[in-house]
Amino acid sequence: MSYRELRERVCAANRELPRRNLVVYTFGNVSGIDRARGVFAIKPSGVPYEDLDPDMMVVLDLDCRVIEGALNPSSDTKTHAVLYRHFPRIGGICHTHSPYATAWAQAARSIPCLGTTHADHAPGEIPCTAVMTEEQVRGDYEEETGLRIVERFAGLSPDETEMVLVASHGPFTWGKTPEIAVYNSVVLEEIAKTALFTLFLDPERPPLTRALIERHYERKHGAGAYYGQRTETGPAASGGE
Amino acid sequence: MSYRELRERVCAANRELPRRNLVVYTFGNVSGIDRARGVFAIKPSGVPYEDLDPDMMVVLDLDCRVIEGALNPSSDTKTHAVLYRHFPRIGGICHTHSPYATAWAQAARSIPCLGTTHADHAPGEIPCTAVMTEEQVRGDYEEETGLRIVERFAGLSPDETEMVLVASHGPFTWGKTPEIAVYNSVVLEEIAKTALFTLFLDPERPPLTRALIERHYERKHGAGAYYGQRTETGPAASGGE
Amino acid sequence: MSYRELRERVCAANRELPRRNLVVYTFGNVSGIDRARGVFAIKPSGVPYEDLDPDMMVVLDLDCRVIEGALNPSSDTKTHAVLYRHFPRIGGICHTHSPYATAWAQAARSIPCLGTTHADHAPGEIPCTAVMTEEQVRGDYEEETGLRIVERFAGLSPDETEMVLVASHGPFTWGKTPEIAVYNSVVLEEIAKTALFTLFLDPERPPLTRALIERHYERKHGAGAYYGQRTETGPAASGGE
Amino acid sequence: MSYRELRERVCAANRELPRRNLVVYTFGNVSGIDRARGVFAIKPSGVPYEDLDPDMMVVLDLDCRVIEGALNPSSDTKTHAVLYRHFPRIGGICHTHSPYATAWAQAARSIPCLGTTHADHAPGEIPCTAVMTEEQVRGDYEEETGLRIVERFAGLSPDETEMVLVASHGPFTWGKTPEIAVYNSVVLEEIAKTALFTLFLDPERPPLTRALIERHYERKHGAGAYYGQRTETGPAASGGE
Repeated sequence: MSYRELRERVCAANRELPRRNLVVYTFGNVSGIDRARGVFAIKPSGVPYEDLDPDMMVVLDLDCRVIEGALNPSSDTKTHAVLYRHFPRIGGICHTHSPYATAWAQAARSIPCLGTTHADHAPGEIPCTAVMTEEQVRGDYEEETGLRIVERFAGLSPDETEMVLVASHGPFTWGKTPEIAVYNSVVLEEIAKTALFTLFLDPERPPLTRALIERHYERKHGAGAYYGQRTETGPAASGGE
Repeated sequence: MSYRELRERVCAANRELPRRNLVVYTFGNVSGIDRARGVFAIKPSGVPYEDLDPDMMVVLDLDCRVIEGALNPSSDTKTHAVLYRHFPRIGGICHTHSPYATAWAQAARSIPCLGTTHADHAPGEIPCTAVMTEEQVRGDYEEETGLRIVERFAGLSPDETEMVLVASHGPFTWGKTPEIAVYNSVVLEEIAKTALFTLFLDPERPPLTRALIERHYERKHGAGAYYGQRTETGPAASGGE
Repeated sequence: MSYRELRERVCAANRELPRRNLVVYTFGNVSGIDRARGVFAIKPSGVPYEDLDPDMMVVLDLDCRVIEGALNPSSDTKTHAVLYRHFPRIGGICHTHSPYATAWAQAARSIPCLGTTHADHAPGEIPCTAVMTEEQVRGDYEEETGLRIVERFAGLSPDETEMVLVASHGPFTWGKTPEIAVYNSVVLEEIAKTALFTLFLDPERPPLTRALIERHYERKHGAGAYYGQRTETGPAASGGE
Repeated sequence: MSYRELRERVCAANRELPRRNLVVYTFGNVSGIDRARGVFAIKPSGVPYEDLDPDMMVVLDLDCRVIEGALNPSSDTKTHAVLYRHFPRIGGICHTHSPYATAWAQAARSIPCLGTTHADHAPGEIPCTAVMTEEQVRGDYEEETGLRIVERFAGLSPDETEMVLVASHGPFTWGKTPEIAVYNSVVLEEIAKTALFTLFLDPERPPLTRALIERHYERKHGAGAYYGQRTETGPAASGGE
């Protein structure tokens, strides 16, 4: 994958955000990484999606030094870099402020696994990070944001649960590719919305049993998975069938 | 009806799902049956709606043996087959994860009949199945899903109530044709949404009286029905007039 | 106004319903009256909006005898006729099942006047009718629906409050023309939605003071009204400015 | 800036309102000011957005005398004039009845700063004015509306917090230009919606710490701001990256 191809894919993934109703104005960003070269490309800061072209993407190394690109990278760039450094198999990251997922983040609540749509995509709750301490906020803020995510994943696999809520802030999702990262942001917003409505109807609703979570997660992601068409391209698709 | 016609109708019905805002990505599936030949056609698993063409539909017999089609059928295929076997007059089935109906399913609550829009379409509550036991989950899962629906309809007519909520999962609807099955999924989402808002405004709201439910249901579906134009084609249309 | 013109206006007003997101399928109907000739035109029952043309509109007298038209009129026709007979200055009626207004109707709650958007359009609460008795339901049901509205307007002016909620059913709105009737249905859905969210934020919120309601209502509708451009055509427009 | 240019920009900003789903019919208005000449342009009252052209904008001085324009100005014109007189650095004002922001206004509640999206745009709560006294309502109503906003900003900077809720009425936003005023109305609706959902999930949720609010607000607006591309044109863009 050349920088050209990386920039094209990251640009297209960013432009998908308003089409999926995940963002207004510039409220979100997508990045993608070329693991072989050790660089990632990310949206420039503050540029509207409809104005983006591949040349505007900023290419950086994992220490956030700009390799290619004339514009300032997204102000969340350091958070992306932390995730790429600590989660070695992910290929793309997406961050939005979609309203339902953001509400769970602002309430500092993990989303319990209340249904099979959720279980199709994550084998347990969607975790929410700890609220940052004052010291962390006053420190290298965007780096600290990434570290809170990494810390929260102690004991969790970022290859199984590809979504997180940053307390007081909003969702980050990732995946093998930038396209899957965007797909996961769309799915997370659906999960967050449906879970909120579920708790309205039954505030004490317990999560699914472990057996049912595993059944759904495994039928899509396990060794004996029988969902989809067994191709390796594109998003892993979904849980409706 | 040739397989060609069956596949065309089932394909078109599947493509209607995103246009009606019932699904994101591949979160739903529609099937249709040719009773004379004993086969049904269903969406292939994991293929986006906009890519579907009639040749991609998978044709199976009621034991789920593939008769025609190169792709894997929807992973929910066995659930459809159970319903076709037990509900002998239904001609199409639709399954989605539409958010309001799914929230009722995740809360494991039947939807009480709180208004005439509901009564126009079903002569009582929209039933929710029992939560599956661990044994059922670990067994032939999609078959068991269908059996829970059949079990829940003991004493209910699937020709009158063409909608169900599968606990922890989401809605299934059906009807005389695949088109009516889709129509019923749209209507169910409206009913689920309006019922949730109603309970916000009055958490103790009782269901309609039997007399009012019957009046509305009969004016559309009874022997003396006076709704619509007395044709036999297309959805039975709705309750707004 | 010839029947032609009446049918054209009523057809156009019906076709506006899906464009304003007030209906799915055939969940609503609009009528308009020619007072000089004593006839009204209404949507045919069960026909999708996109298929409607002016020739399909059904023209009836106020006793609901069909004067012109080959199709069955809306099953709510008698309700419209009752309103035209009892509210002598109204020129059009609109009925939908829009979800927020329908939720208030299903909860059998009048909408209190909680804000100036509401006060711009009605000088007090949006009334909800009494729940029908079993005798009324078993009687001439659609006629009884109209009579419940008329009964509820004892002491209220239908020329000031052009909106009502029929308990367990949904909203009816009206106005000097069919176009204003549709406008009022759009506005009612906004009022119903905003009022529901307001009660979430403050369940005990009292209605506006009489002074503020009158100020807003009078600035648009009173003798010294100073809103808009003082023309007599088109909807009376709204309250945002 | 000539009147022509002012009228063109104000017209375009008004036409943006329905595209951003902030208004139905004529439920909102935008104005812009030419500080050098001491005049502002505003939408004419009761004219649909799609019919607006620059020649229809009404140009007035700060005492609300019409300088140019054949139509009646928005009925909220005096409120705009009060804000221009008291907030000397603002260049545009936007007023809508968007449903979530209006719900907070109708509940007479300020929106607490519950997340970083909010903190990116305002360094504390979005204030709600006092409910008007009967004397104020009966007085010069639109002037009094403006005075309530000014009064509420005692101790607050209108250059930092560019949004307000008028109790029982709805939101007003402003900014250096008419375009930024519209941008702020879109953002306020997102903030209002997300805050409402957050309180559903945790009714006692405390606001962000002062350190976190300042960190986010400063990274976009402070002396060491590092968000965006350091241009001076267009909206200051947003907080997603």
